[in-house]
Amino acid sequence: MAIKFLLPEDRIPTSWYNVAADLPAPPPPPLHPGTLQPAGPGDLAPLFPMGLIMQEMSAEPTIEIPDEVREIYRLWRPTPLLRAARWEKVLGTPAKIYFKYEGVSPAGSHKPNTAVAQAWYNKQEGITKLTTETGAGQWGSALSLACNLMGMECLVYMVKVSYFQKPYRRSMIRVWGAEVIPSPSDTTASGRAILAQDPDSMGSLGIAISEAVEVAAHRDDTHYSLGSVLNHVLLHQTVIGQEAIEQMELADAYPDFVVGCVGGGSNFAGIAFPFLGQNIKKGKKTRLIAVEPAACPSMTKGVYCFDYGDTAKLTPLVKMDTLGHDFIPPGIHAGGLRYHGMAPMLSHAFHLGLVEAESVMQTEAFSAGVSFARSEGIIPAPESNHALAMVSKLAEECKQSGDAKTILFNLSGHGHFDMAAYDNYLDGKLEDYAYPEEKIKEAMKNLPKV
Amino acid sequence: MAIKFLLPEDRIPTSWYNVAADLPAPPPPPLHPGTLQPAGPGDLAPLFPMGLIMQEMSAEPTIEIPDEVREIYRLWRPTPLLRAARWEKVLGTPAKIYFKYEGVSPAGSHKPNTAVAQAWYNKQEGITKLTTETGAGQWGSALSLACNLMGMECLVYMVKVSYFQKPYRRSMIRVWGAEVIPSPSDTTASGRAILAQDPDSMGSLGIAISEAVEVAAHRDDTHYSLGSVLNHVLLHQTVIGQEAIEQMELADAYPDFVVGCVGGGSNFAGIAFPFLGQNIKKGKKTRLIAVEPAACPSMTKGVYCFDYGDTAKLTPLVKMDTLGHDFIPPGIHAGGLRYHGMAPMLSHAFHLGLVEAESVMQTEAFSAGVSFARSEGIIPAPESNHALAMVSKLAEECKQSGDAKTILFNLSGHGHFDMAAYDNYLDGKLEDYAYPEEKIKEAMKNLPKV
Repeated sequence: MAIKFLLPEDRIPTSWYNVAADLPAPPPPPLHPGTLQPAGPGDLAPLFPMGLIMQEMSAEPTIEIPDEVREIYRLWRPTPLLRAARWEKVLGTPAKIYFKYEGVSPAGSHKPNTAVAQAWYNKQEGITKLTTETGAGQWGSALSLACNLMGMECLVYMVKVSYFQKPYRRSMIRVWGAEVIPSPSDTTASGRAILAQDPDSMGSLGIAISEAVEVAAHRDDTHYSLGSVLNHVLLHQTVIGQEAIEQMELADAYPDFVVGCVGGGSNFAGIAFPFLGQNIKKGKKTRLIAVEPAACPSMTKGVYCFDYGDTAKLTPLVKMDTLGHDFIPPGIHAGGLRYHGMAPMLSHAFHLGLVEAESVMQTEAFSAGVSFARSEGIIPAPESNHALAMVSKLAEECKQSGDAKTILFNLSGHGHFDMAAYDNYLDGKLEDYAYPEEKIKEAMKNLPKV
Repeated sequence: MAIKFLLPEDRIPTSWYNVAADLPAPPPPPLHPGTLQPAGPGDLAPLFPMGLIMQEMSAEPTIEIPDEVREIYRLWRPTPLLRAARWEKVLGTPAKIYFKYEGVSPAGSHKPNTAVAQAWYNKQEGITKLTTETGAGQWGSALSLACNLMGMECLVYMVKVSYFQKPYRRSMIRVWGAEVIPSPSDTTASGRAILAQDPDSMGSLGIAISEAVEVAAHRDDTHYSLGSVLNHVLLHQTVIGQEAIEQMELADAYPDFVVGCVGGGSNFAGIAFPFLGQNIKKGKKTRLIAVEPAACPSMTKGVYCFDYGDTAKLTPLVKMDTLGHDFIPPGIHAGGLRYHGMAPMLSHAFHLGLVEAESVMQTEAFSAGVSFARSEGIIPAPESNHALAMVSKLAEECKQSGDAKTILFNLSGHGHFDMAAYDNYLDGKLEDYAYPEEKIKEAMKNLPKV
């Protein structure tokens, strides 16, 4: 029995899959933050190239992947699909567990799939530099890699506390030739305003976004880049699911469940949307389960309404599952799963009843991650551990029922730069936290009235 | 033009290749440290299982890989062979550069190839626990992974300074369920003796070896395991070169040069010995180049003689290129390339004129590593950077001569746990150091008179 299902380079998908074309209803358009009227392409033009704005609003079923992007994808794609045969035995389940492993990219996660595409479309329109924000550094490192491969400059505002406490993704960003500045900084008006109030501010993702957006908005040669949430980001990640469909055929299997963790939603959408397309177009019945941390439960506890993408209310409003733009995420370790909202396209599919959502506690996430690492070798990213916890539950259900279901999950990245979180878990220092109902109600008061 | 050359799982080699069978003369046997007479299998039995001792002394051309070991190899093998097409362009060379990438193993290096095999042979003889030492943690993490997969216990003595300053490979060891103790410790007589003299001792590899060996020597259920140097370790690594030969065929190419970095010698031997076999048996003319740091130049500056494997003179004497067992390596960052001696089998091949050796400075190593990372994405281990520096030189020679030579090198691991060294390099804080001639002469005075 094979455990690895590999595709040759020429099987890298030639187009991205746009789920919007197959959904029974179109997703609501974004609203302009000033007028609260539907935003047009021009409203997004100061920050994004028209090539990406068109993708953001596209209803085409497929969008061709540019040759140069596919050329760079070849450095790590197609990624392997593996059967977790050793873990199945440890779990004592009759379930067949497969995983798509995105940790083989140079940045160690799925993020370069969109970073490379975003850099390319910006480059076509004469942009020579991209700015972005990063927390622990996963997105910042992916974008710096992409810009470097495209011969572009990259400026990353990194939340100051991570800049100093988690220096190794910062080092990665430097190795790939990007500039990385601890945020808040004195390089922007918004950074200086924060520092004037609090010279010792350790920063936040919201502040770092403001700094990156400010730089991009003031320079013609510079754009801003976002690593999740937006439609075009989810679109680029569909290479994952398209490859997985072909690899499951090689494995002579088809998933009853597809599972992924969600923060902004891009890695889950990347694997799940192509299978959703199969459900819609071919009558398949795969259950698609998005798994979020109980500490940041936008799908399972939030509301579905128009909200801002950022704390400062500068971005367009999008209809999404949200905990409110004032939401301050607790200090959980899965740094990539702390956004207050969920990708609009994924929220839309969720409320159409096409996707399910579950939440898990972080200790159960790490428990599943350690069990997996001891069976399969690979040490998963803390974010991915949330998917693993859900897979464990499904495997246990199969054990109880005797049903040999087929489960596929997205192992979105490795945990090489998150080992301190594993130490905390093994030392019993990891605290569970579920976002309290009363706090959610309070945050909802500030939702925009649209 | 393809850039990735992948083999299916059923092409994992079925046997290890024993170069000893093809060399024109047998390598000199090890000597007992007490009698200075050739050591027999029984002399090694307190530390190693007979299965490995027989491999250590074998003249058989091939040794079958046990099914269970191959089964575990499938988690990451066959490893990919890639063409560094983007780096070739950056270097502006007509040379064709290929690399075998061993960083895809869960531990991020070639080390698990032998760790899994060693654990298996120990398990067959009733051993339930392995001890070892580790510096920065590359070998310790590989052995803990292997023991975990084999259902064995593992105890790692980690040099205290690394235990506290480089905690993330320590975390990896813990995730894989092994015990890791900072050395010197109060768990052994040798550790206690050091602490009595200096309670604040930050340890050394020599002390950690003593602790690990002491524990193994005093318990019937426990053996000791070494990550390089010995014949059986090099033997296990020949899966690398065997796969590479087949993958170069897929690429429709054959290497003029095979390049690898050397510390103890196992990753270089792993890729080079199978090609050496082709040179001997099939009249191929591939030049095999071992690359060592100028700071620890056992092949290029040492002497070829019988010496002890450890500072405390407890191990058998082996004939090898050595800087003397008193050699104290300078604090260079390529932690895996700091051993005073070179693998006896590799030293033997070198002095038969079948293998070449070169040394490089560490800033040129890191310069090549950063250039490679910016071209191919992958951030190499500092050790591997030494191979890359040599490849750069060969590529430059091809540029000068116009010769489109084919170069294959072993990218023995990734640098995810060595990012601080990259920071030092980028900050201009990395100092070059060549081991001075007078120091070498001094160390030579203490070589055993055999």
